[in-house]
Amino acid sequence: MAQKPGIPKGTRDFSPSEVAKRQYIMSAIKHHFETFGFQPIETPSFENSETLMGKYGEEGDRLIFKILNSGNFFFDKNKIELPQSLEELRVNSSETINKEQLIELNKFTSRISEKALRYDLTVPFARYVVQHQNEIEFPFKRYQIQPVWRADRPQKGRFREFFQCDADVVGSTSLWQEVELVQLYDSVFTTLGLKGAVIKINNRKILSGIAEVIGAKDKLIDFTVALDKLDKVGEDGVKKEMLEKGITEEALVKVQPLFNFTGSINEKLEKLTELLASSEEGLKGVEELRFICDNVTEIGLGESILDLDVTLARGLNYYTGAIFEVNAPKEVAMGSIGGGGRYDDLTGIFGLKNMSGVGISFGLDRIYLVLEELNLFPDTVTEATKVLFVNFGNKEALYCMKAIVKLRQAGIKAELYPDAAKMAKQFQHADKRGIPFTVLCGDEEISTATFKIKNLSSGEQESVSLEALVEKLK
Amino acid sequence: MAQKPGIPKGTRDFSPSEVAKRQYIMSAIKHHFETFGFQPIETPSFENSETLMGKYGEEGDRLIFKILNSGNFFFDKNKIELPQSLEELRVNSSETINKEQLIELNKFTSRISEKALRYDLTVPFARYVVQHQNEIEFPFKRYQIQPVWRADRPQKGRFREFFQCDADVVGSTSLWQEVELVQLYDSVFTTLGLKGAVIKINNRKILSGIAEVIGAKDKLIDFTVALDKLDKVGEDGVKKEMLEKGITEEALVKVQPLFNFTGSINEKLEKLTELLASSEEGLKGVEELRFICDNVTEIGLGESILDLDVTLARGLNYYTGAIFEVNAPKEVAMGSIGGGGRYDDLTGIFGLKNMSGVGISFGLDRIYLVLEELNLFPDTVTEATKVLFVNFGNKEALYCMKAIVKLRQAGIKAELYPDAAKMAKQFQHADKRGIPFTVLCGDEEISTATFKIKNLSSGEQESVSLEALVEKLK
Repeated sequence: MAQKPGIPKGTRDFSPSEVAKRQYIMSAIKHHFETFGFQPIETPSFENSETLMGKYGEEGDRLIFKILNSGNFFFDKNKIELPQSLEELRVNSSETINKEQLIELNKFTSRISEKALRYDLTVPFARYVVQHQNEIEFPFKRYQIQPVWRADRPQKGRFREFFQCDADVVGSTSLWQEVELVQLYDSVFTTLGLKGAVIKINNRKILSGIAEVIGAKDKLIDFTVALDKLDKVGEDGVKKEMLEKGITEEALVKVQPLFNFTGSINEKLEKLTELLASSEEGLKGVEELRFICDNVTEIGLGESILDLDVTLARGLNYYTGAIFEVNAPKEVAMGSIGGGGRYDDLTGIFGLKNMSGVGISFGLDRIYLVLEELNLFPDTVTEATKVLFVNFGNKEALYCMKAIVKLRQAGIKAELYPDAAKMAKQFQHADKRGIPFTVLCGDEEISTATFKIKNLSSGEQESVSLEALVEKLK
Repeated sequence: MAQKPGIPKGTRDFSPSEVAKRQYIMSAIKHHFETFGFQPIETPSFENSETLMGKYGEEGDRLIFKILNSGNFFFDKNKIELPQSLEELRVNSSETINKEQLIELNKFTSRISEKALRYDLTVPFARYVVQHQNEIEFPFKRYQIQPVWRADRPQKGRFREFFQCDADVVGSTSLWQEVELVQLYDSVFTTLGLKGAVIKINNRKILSGIAEVIGAKDKLIDFTVALDKLDKVGEDGVKKEMLEKGITEEALVKVQPLFNFTGSINEKLEKLTELLASSEEGLKGVEELRFICDNVTEIGLGESILDLDVTLARGLNYYTGAIFEVNAPKEVAMGSIGGGGRYDDLTGIFGLKNMSGVGISFGLDRIYLVLEELNLFPDTVTEATKVLFVNFGNKEALYCMKAIVKLRQAGIKAELYPDAAKMAKQFQHADKRGIPFTVLCGDEEISTATFKIKNLSSGEQESVSLEALVEKLK
């Protein structure tokens, strides 16, 4: 076989420098997760299909990667029944599949596949909490940094395998959790040197309140989608779209303040209090937001900006309280680099009721692109080997190896060129690898127990003792 | 749905303390991989099926997890052809499947599944090297720490999802690589506090030499398998088995020294030199082993022991030079905790010839069990949160949060209890979580800008300034 090998679409190989940069981001996230008291768990890459199916809607089900049962199941009449009518049900690419056929397909699929790759970290976490509820001390603050898989159509910035970095608290309705999650976002972005990330916050109860005020709960999505376009199409454009969607003139009058929804968070909260005066739920949302924003402001943030965004809806049917989304600094056109919120019934799907959860997620791939674009990765992140010992032959190599052991013990990345190749070739190797120093040891160095170190960028060289060598390279 | 949720057999959930211990081991491995100049790469969890199939033998193919094509492929006559005769070919569980049926099954499987989960890290690495050969500077020292999946029958210590930790050098035939890999094993085990791990080394050329000497290349596996039982069944037992397998009396006379193959590495090398005097390849193997062992001994090891084991064969048809295996210290009945060797044609399967590779792998799960059994995990590894601030209400909580921010900035894991619950409940939470300190702040502390810290095991408590608090908990 001599085909040119490749990888499946939507997946990626990561080179050493890419891995190093990804690890740099993940380390910062992990560090802050831990100082905030979150503890790591890991769940299997694949779950039983019934754990995942039906949790992400019809579209989600379709995007879950299913694993074929192992063994020769297909031939075994006792294990798998071929639908009698399967061949008849099949269609050409151009024909569409009807509901009945889809049910038949799903039935068949569930017979040949009982496991599926995890689609996110939230459902496996809910499963974990229910399964291990007797070992867990609540409130349980867990973090999880693992890959997930989605059979989405790959496109720029969207992959079929990608990491999620999630922190969730389960078993506490305290709003201090929301306060801390805002701080957690800020701490990570501040550590990464990212200035001006906008942590947007909203509350599902405010959205419900708006729905009450406009007199149509079912129009809420149309309303927020339209309102979100205010920047692009202006007030008249937004109103036109709203009217088209069946929102009444009267409703638009009531929510007029949302069309000029600027100012400080406090000013926005004031406007919302007036606007939602007739909605008990809406006012509860305002109160919650006020608690979170007041305390965050009082405690202070690093380099990030907190903002209140009433158009923020993210998976409207999922969140029940706070909703978070983080935008990259405005000089980078990247959109959301994180999101999350509170969901009152995380574990209900697995039979454990009344377990409120709140959590956030960091978008590793997008944070990577933002740091790359703003040139925020420190040079040291991708620094591989610090020093290459030139190989003049086995006697010299042995002398070098003894020193290399000491350097490595001091945490210095050190290598011996493996062969006594021509000097030019060895130096070229150091150059191509970006190794900043070489050490040369011949008879003279061996007899005087010294090491000739050369700085490859300045050309400077000097002979030093082993101790001095360690100091110099540390 | 209120079923009690579970996970697929052979997979595992990892609790916070398990993740912490696993990360402790992986950090040590990663640290030494990097000081030795190995660079990380990552490859996708699933590869195109043709990349993996046929690389691990017939048994291996069967153990590869296959991923079902996404979308409604099954109904699409243009995309997938149902074998006409499939229904006829099917059998009952009791009947056996014949070759023809297996071919039909494989053909069908390859139509409904084009991707498969990676089975090891070596084949994806070979694929990576070939695919990216123009970006790679050789010799290329790469490490990779990622999960792999095998549809093996799960049993004690054998899982369907597990991590491999591999370091390989490709593009260098220098024996200094072998020297370094022995040191690498030793460095990791020494860092982990593991005393007396036995790094066993052999060479495929010595095994070939023995085959020459016993006059039967095809009997080599029978020979090494039998010889490996020397400890258990004694010399007579081993010889009996060898004769049964068709090895001649004359051959046994020639290799008599192997039945008393004790002594220092040098003594063993002497015996081998005599024994293999008539085999050019065998003597080459002795010479290679001598180079490796001499240099390792000269440079010195930490807590591990190097030994020469002529029965070591590990995947005989795979390795072409050095063969490594590490045994846990003899007080632990665990067997191999690592292995590796040199393979002369790593990338040939993907069309890139003459690329010699040599590498080693660390068995994470077994190392974990060994450290657990010998009680070698430092207590600090599983230490989660260091201090819990008791919550007396929102005013006090805000005062605490401002201090918590400072503690976290100093790298101290600190938490606020989220609700103003009863004191007893909050202390119980600290106790159950194993949190060693609590801080209590009421009106008095707020007015004097102090923090009352309590050591939960000694009961001691004192009021200190914020600076003193940071110092105390650091």
